[in-house]
Amino acid sequence: MSTVVKSAPSRPATSARSAAPKLPAGLFSRRTALIGSENAFRIGPQIRELESRGLKVIKCNLGEPDFPLAKHIADEVKRQIDLDLTHYCDPQGILPLREAIARTMSARRGLKITPDRIVVFPGGKPPIGLTQQTYCNPGDEVIYPSPGFPIYESFATYLSAKPVPLHLREEADFSFTGRELAALITKRTRVIILNFPSNPTGGVVSAEQLADIANVIRRKAPPQARIYSDEIYEDILFDGNVHRSIACEPGMAERTIIASGVSKSFAWTGGRVGWAAFPSAEEATVFRNLNINYFSCIPAYNQMGAAVALESPLSAPEMARMRAAFLERRDMMVAGLNAIPGITCRKPGGAFYLFPNIAGLCHDLGAIAAHRKLPAALRARTSPATLVQMFLLWNYQVATMDRRSFGRIGSAGQHYLRLSIATGLADLEIGLLRIRAAAADHDGFKKFIHEGQHLC
Amino acid sequence: MSTVVKSAPSRPATSARSAAPKLPAGLFSRRTALIGSENAFRIGPQIRELESRGLKVIKCNLGEPDFPLAKHIADEVKRQIDLDLTHYCDPQGILPLREAIARTMSARRGLKITPDRIVVFPGGKPPIGLTQQTYCNPGDEVIYPSPGFPIYESFATYLSAKPVPLHLREEADFSFTGRELAALITKRTRVIILNFPSNPTGGVVSAEQLADIANVIRRKAPPQARIYSDEIYEDILFDGNVHRSIACEPGMAERTIIASGVSKSFAWTGGRVGWAAFPSAEEATVFRNLNINYFSCIPAYNQMGAAVALESPLSAPEMARMRAAFLERRDMMVAGLNAIPGITCRKPGGAFYLFPNIAGLCHDLGAIAAHRKLPAALRARTSPATLVQMFLLWNYQVATMDRRSFGRIGSAGQHYLRLSIATGLADLEIGLLRIRAAAADHDGFKKFIHEGQHLC
Repeated sequence: MSTVVKSAPSRPATSARSAAPKLPAGLFSRRTALIGSENAFRIGPQIRELESRGLKVIKCNLGEPDFPLAKHIADEVKRQIDLDLTHYCDPQGILPLREAIARTMSARRGLKITPDRIVVFPGGKPPIGLTQQTYCNPGDEVIYPSPGFPIYESFATYLSAKPVPLHLREEADFSFTGRELAALITKRTRVIILNFPSNPTGGVVSAEQLADIANVIRRKAPPQARIYSDEIYEDILFDGNVHRSIACEPGMAERTIIASGVSKSFAWTGGRVGWAAFPSAEEATVFRNLNINYFSCIPAYNQMGAAVALESPLSAPEMARMRAAFLERRDMMVAGLNAIPGITCRKPGGAFYLFPNIAGLCHDLGAIAAHRKLPAALRARTSPATLVQMFLLWNYQVATMDRRSFGRIGSAGQHYLRLSIATGLADLEIGLLRIRAAAADHDGFKKFIHEGQHLC
Repeated sequence: MSTVVKSAPSRPATSARSAAPKLPAGLFSRRTALIGSENAFRIGPQIRELESRGLKVIKCNLGEPDFPLAKHIADEVKRQIDLDLTHYCDPQGILPLREAIARTMSARRGLKITPDRIVVFPGGKPPIGLTQQTYCNPGDEVIYPSPGFPIYESFATYLSAKPVPLHLREEADFSFTGRELAALITKRTRVIILNFPSNPTGGVVSAEQLADIANVIRRKAPPQARIYSDEIYEDILFDGNVHRSIACEPGMAERTIIASGVSKSFAWTGGRVGWAAFPSAEEATVFRNLNINYFSCIPAYNQMGAAVALESPLSAPEMARMRAAFLERRDMMVAGLNAIPGITCRKPGGAFYLFPNIAGLCHDLGAIAAHRKLPAALRARTSPATLVQMFLLWNYQVATMDRRSFGRIGSAGQHYLRLSIATGLADLEIGLLRIRAAAADHDGFKKFIHEGQHLC
């Protein structure tokens, strides 16, 4: 048990920054106050502060495979730099990459997607916001899974669109039925976001369920509603699950945007190459022009690396190696978490996240009661799961994410954490030990709440 | 004169695309119709079409130095890839780069800019739009130079802010006075964009003029108004001109955003690394969060390359070599253009663009009369200078940009072209011969207008 670090020495969180000038009132636009964030990045500085004290933090917070970029991909990027492919290029994405995307995306899904419908972006993220900017006026409705990737909700509020969370139920393995979706669709629905395999739950979709969802969309969604199918985890599936895209259902290809990228499949989160296939070349042109306005283009040498990643025969064994590692970790961690009193954890079918229910733990530790007693302003900015998350981070150096980091609207009373298993098995074992120790540390939790330094 | 290609075989411009599905009415948001574009990218496909016919196009259209990325920078990028710096990083920009930017930006300007005020973006472009999103509500006013980089105006209209062009006068070497700026500032002014050295005119700013501008801003601008000082051409200056930033004037540092990047200084347009220094760390945090929402982060290996570019002693000789080449081309081209009847061209003090007045040429060729006779809908989408631009491209294979590509509002009656000199001297000499031949080709121009295939 020597690996369990009991509580870090506390230190004021203020930095050595010089006194900030006072900003004039009304400096920022109204929309600036409406945007959310991705807390996975926000806790980075807290982790660095702990590390600067010499503490080892087990990082189950970031959605980033802990594998190096495969050599054949890195080699291609370097080769293209040597060829001086270092200048402006097609703002829609260079043709060799769009062709590779069109081929691989079409082959896997049995669709005929042409390169003129594909737009390359600086990562998998840009099309999330740009899609909402393109299809939603203020007051239009965006349906998105909750818990889900936080940027879905963040952009809806930023644009004064109406965020409509589609709540995923644990009992249904963090999935939903057509009927649940149908209840949310109105004539103002403009974007319906799907994400299988899912972040943060690892949920996957069955053939029957997808048919059910498509049926509801055909029947009920207005013709202007687009489906944004975020398929960034398409290559990370376990237990014989296969990847399924809503675009393959009858009538769906002509209204679905399929988004993916290199970050998760190829452990290349720092390449910032993502893409989307749009229902029509005309729509792709709109996004090409948004690229021109926002970014100009995406580094061509990275795009050539992405093309090699998609089509080189050397990629499959790398991906298989990653999947095998995730699988081993998943099984170890699910068993370990379920053995801790107050925690129950389902076995996800894809992605590299666990989403344990910690309601029992919140209750046992007194997090629910502690949350209830907080001053109203602070209470609104945190949750019982957040208190446990912060306790795990600051007293036990295990970085996790809380439920409310994955869509805030309607998340009250839901007690979950997200643990990424994209970190080594040995570290995960240490993490498990620490979580087990934390779960039993009633006095430590009481003291942590009493000190009140890190409650949100 | 054998290098002058007379008129390309005409061919319908339609591509082999399959019939597009009909898009539902009201598919796109209102803002989608309001955004502009950067025509420098738009004519790329036209150039490729000409090249596919085996024609050599002289590319005076793109703002892209025609030098390879310097070896020491490329080597650093490749070295960091080998070190596997290929994963997520600080969304604000990695600290080593922000420190290098803070040091070099501060040293050149005699300011004290700290790394917590700096945000790195995927290129020099993203902060243009994000600044307007952050400081402007609908109806707020954005003052920007016209002719100027087209994205300034494009974002103002996209956001339903009010675009307020500050017209640059040729007689003042494409500059303006404090009095001209003062006439445009109102209590709704939120962003004032400056760009010295300037795209597309190559204009620079004198010490007296900058003091005059700062004086007006101090006196007249509301406290919420931010200055966006686009200093991307800061390293490309001729004739003993030095770089001057408005941020150095009294009272300006606390309201100025200084933007720059690697594209122009280091001939690395395909690296997509740019940055801005904000007046306060608090404002930088807002942009860090926009990065989180839009991009996650910028490839860290590219950022390390940018840090080396900024501080390696190997960079200065490379930049000196580029400047010397630009200077030689400028002098040759200015003399050559002024020798063509109907064209007058001032000698720019910086950047790598010429902005010749072609009013005489438009008159001689009959472009003004031809434009007047066009059907109203088409007439609104083109201009006499555009007709000359298209004639040069399609009949003489010289790619240039027209005046209206650099801010449309109020550009009617202004007859200019932008010629980039970021292309080799030998090609520029061919380009000059072709322009001279085109200027005398009255029959060819008449026929070009009559055929009417490429009038906008």
